[in-house]
Amino acid sequence: MLAWMNEEAYNETVRTSKAVYYSRSRKRLWRKGEESGNQQIVHEIRIDCDRDAVLLFVEQVGGAACHEGFSSCFFRRVTESGTSHEVVGQRLFDPKTVYKK
Amino acid sequence: MLAWMNEEAYNETVRTSKAVYYSRSRKRLWRKGEESGNQQIVHEIRIDCDRDAVLLFVEQVGGAACHEGFSSCFFRRVTESGTSHEVVGQRLFDPKTVYKK
Repeated sequence: MLAWMNEEAYNETVRTSKAVYYSRSRKRLWRKGEESGNQQIVHEIRIDCDRDAVLLFVEQVGGAACHEGFSSCFFRRVTESGTSHEVVGQRLFDPKTVYKK
Repeated sequence: MLAWMNEEAYNETVRTSKAVYYSRSRKRLWRKGEESGNQQIVHEIRIDCDRDAVLLFVEQVGGAACHEGFSSCFFRRVTESGTSHEVVGQRLFDPKTVYKK
């Protein structure tokens, strides 16, 4: 999955070893799993060459990182033509049963 | 590695099966490997759940994706305290011999 962090999110991630992001749409910290229970336990943190991207190695509680119920948010493969997608990977949960809205 | 694409970069990536990004600093397409020769041959393209991020599965020519000579740009591991980094991974080339500037 790909998400944003601000300084506060990064610091809390380091301190708690749980993934914390910054939701740009909600304009607040997003403690991953706060609603679904599917937290991410952080085992390792990497910084990239120009120090503006963070890579987390995590243990994904519940197996699915994606709010759509897939282990990865990248569950759509672009077909040869580049004009359509097909779903790859298995849905591990039904979003309707996990999220109350 | 993490980089940006615009529509033109994405379309050229799909069409040529070579990774093309958009350099925000240079404000132009960045055909990965155009200077170093270290192109990325694209084997698969994935799109994420909210369709604003692209994941490329590539064969990295030369073995190093990073302009610093490492296979990955994420060659710095954050230490326990969160206040310093240590380099992990091996440098595969010396940037000075690959880039003329």
